Amino acid sequence: MKFYDCKMAPNPRRARILMAEKGIKIPMIDVNILDGENLREPYLAINSRGLLPTLELDDGTRFDEVMAICRYFEELYPTPNLLGRTPVERALVESYQRKAEFEGMIAGSEAFRNKHEKFIDRSIPGGPKHKIPAIPGLVARGRQTIERFHEWLEHTLAKTEYLVGDSYSMADITAQCAVDFHKWIEISIPAANTHTQRWYKAVSARPSAAA
Amino acid sequence: MKFYDCKMAPNPRRARILMAEKGIKIPMIDVNILDGENLREPYLAINSRGLLPTLELDDGTRFDEVMAICRYFEELYPTPNLLGRTPVERALVESYQRKAEFEGMIAGSEAFRNKHEKFIDRSIPGGPKHKIPAIPGLVARGRQTIERFHEWLEHTLAKTEYLVGDSYSMADITAQCAVDFHKWIEISIPAANTHTQRWYKAVSARPSAAA
Repeated sequence: MKFYDCKMAPNPRRARILMAEKGIKIPMIDVNILDGENLREPYLAINSRGLLPTLELDDGTRFDEVMAICRYFEELYPTPNLLGRTPVERALVESYQRKAEFEGMIAGSEAFRNKHEKFIDRSIPGGPKHKIPAIPGLVARGRQTIERFHEWLEHTLAKTEYLVGDSYSMADITAQCAVDFHKWIEISIPAANTHTQRWYKAVSARPSAAA
Repeated sequence: MKFYDCKMAPNPRRARILMAEKGIKIPMIDVNILDGENLREPYLAINSRGLLPTLELDDGTRFDEVMAICRYFEELYPTPNLLGRTPVERALVESYQRKAEFEGMIAGSEAFRNKHEKFIDRSIPGGPKHKIPAIPGLVARGRQTIERFHEWLEHTLAKTEYLVGDSYSMADITAQCAVDFHKWIEISIPAANTHTQRWYKAVSARPSAAA
């Protein structure tokens, strides 16, 4: 297998942390999104839309979408479990990781992309043919959505150690990547959110956080 | 179990079609999103964010996010399989259903919500505290993204009967719900996209399409 990565981007990091937790070591090929390397050959021959990350299997099968890649790894390397141990737990991990994705990762991406000069005609990920102009109004909407994200995190982490019960899971990985990504747009965990602060300290202390 | 539904909304329909395919019959409680019934009591006591659908289990556990609900149903009622039969197939279904969600469903929702008078301060789903103003620029971006969606659909369906190989799956369900939802914003399958037309006729002829 090969993993087409972008070390600086927050989304591929979700898969890298999961790989680090499971001890998965495969070749990683770095592609620079900021310079648009993903929207040119040779990467377009790997992923015609220019999206990252992409996983390539030994038989040449390729797929993108970070959660598809993470689910595939979870099946091949089930230990430690990161997607839930029972049907209900798996549903909760999926539901919570999705909230962290939508209100944390995507909201952060909207606030970042629609302001940064390098993304002036790349309002949404992927291309290369479709230039989609930045929409300045999304910066405020992204930041407002992140406020919602922090309220939800604090409310949830007041009740449990991790987002889903007492086990670190993919829901935590997505939320942790979102919190770190928000540093790029100068948003941090509100000082009053003590449960989130406690959780963030714990997840950041795991060796996988360096991934 | 109980399913909090919104018959008119495109997103809960993804779960209703999966339930129809699997013959799952449970009480369905309709909540009217257009009139904001989801942002008031008594629904807020069920889902504090006002999101739909929500699944309630017999022990009172509740979760939202349509894919969390669909995965839970797939585990309890594995026949017919709709999320893939092997690890690679499951990765492809997840990857493709996600593309259909992002470039079909969410793009449609952006184009619809940011133009409709009932959503003037509800630019993204859920509330109730956070009023997020509509952003007119998202109407054009949504429509542009849907062009991309149709190119991808046609390209994929030129090679296979359904989105992932020869089996109807969740990827088809999400794409089919997106195509039907786009009628609200007067977008239909381009006449030249003959593979997509053939596929749409087949998926629409399934009894589950009435769900």
